[in-house]
Amino acid sequence: MKELQLQALSADAFAPFGEVIDGQTPCEQYPINEGLTQRHHALAAVDCAREGGAPALSLFRAQAIAPDFVLRSMERHPLGSQAFINTSGNSYAIVVARPGALEEDAIEGFLATGSQSISYHRGTWHHFLLALDCASDFVVVDRIGPGNNCDETELKLPLRLALPR
Amino acid sequence: MKELQLQALSADAFAPFGEVIDGQTPCEQYPINEGLTQRHHALAAVDCAREGGAPALSLFRAQAIAPDFVLRSMERHPLGSQAFINTSGNSYAIVVARPGALEEDAIEGFLATGSQSISYHRGTWHHFLLALDCASDFVVVDRIGPGNNCDETELKLPLRLALPR
Repeated sequence: MKELQLQALSADAFAPFGEVIDGQTPCEQYPINEGLTQRHHALAAVDCAREGGAPALSLFRAQAIAPDFVLRSMERHPLGSQAFINTSGNSYAIVVARPGALEEDAIEGFLATGSQSISYHRGTWHHFLLALDCASDFVVVDRIGPGNNCDETELKLPLRLALPR
Repeated sequence: MKELQLQALSADAFAPFGEVIDGQTPCEQYPINEGLTQRHHALAAVDCAREGGAPALSLFRAQAIAPDFVLRSMERHPLGSQAFINTSGNSYAIVVARPGALEEDAIEGFLATGSQSISYHRGTWHHFLLALDCASDFVVVDRIGPGNNCDETELKLPLRLALPR
């Protein structure tokens, strides 16, 4: 079975798919709160208001995948962005492809550190949450509203992750 | 100087001010992702679209306050909710009062655990971020757009936190 290599997650490498939310991502920055806090401003838009929808915050409590987990499907949200904010401090895997017709050969894998969160652009193909070593919580910002906001497709060629275990 | 006691943060106690985002808050829950993830659905609305605004994700990197820190002001956002998603796993303090004319006698203090995040309702008075023991990162969901979205007021009677140090 094809093994998908995981590259380090960075804002540049992830740009075709969405935004990386961490302290390294280049952005406008300025001090607030009497200088006690640095604001890294507007790292990702929340694009969840189409067709009567609105964004909300949910909690995803993910179990870790098994070491031999097989990736068999991908999904995309045609009506909104979806952000996964990592609140457990654990590393996790991200598997994505560009919006449009899914090109399986162009699927990319990333390894996020425990201090990295991400937001998928509307329409970015992605595998569901892949917690690696232990159960992990993510606060999710996504669209709630009428209409179909999840397309799912089976992979013709299932994948395994080449994991750094 | 008046000392503000901190109560444990819970969804019930915080309800007049906003929402608590953690695994304990009662909500609709259901399994997703082939049963690997439990979705705690719609713990908090994102109310950031008034008057030409839109929500975005920013990162707040907060230094810890000094043990003798004096709280001298409160602020509120008349045009939007503001969520602080705790990504560092550290405890922090929350100081709030209900929307409307600020009643200093009714200011309340909460101690959040490292696994608790919160969202302030539009108009809730709050002190700025109060990291306690060490520098801490929060991913913030708030309104970006035209118009004044921050009212600030000086406290007539400054406060100190009664901290569990």
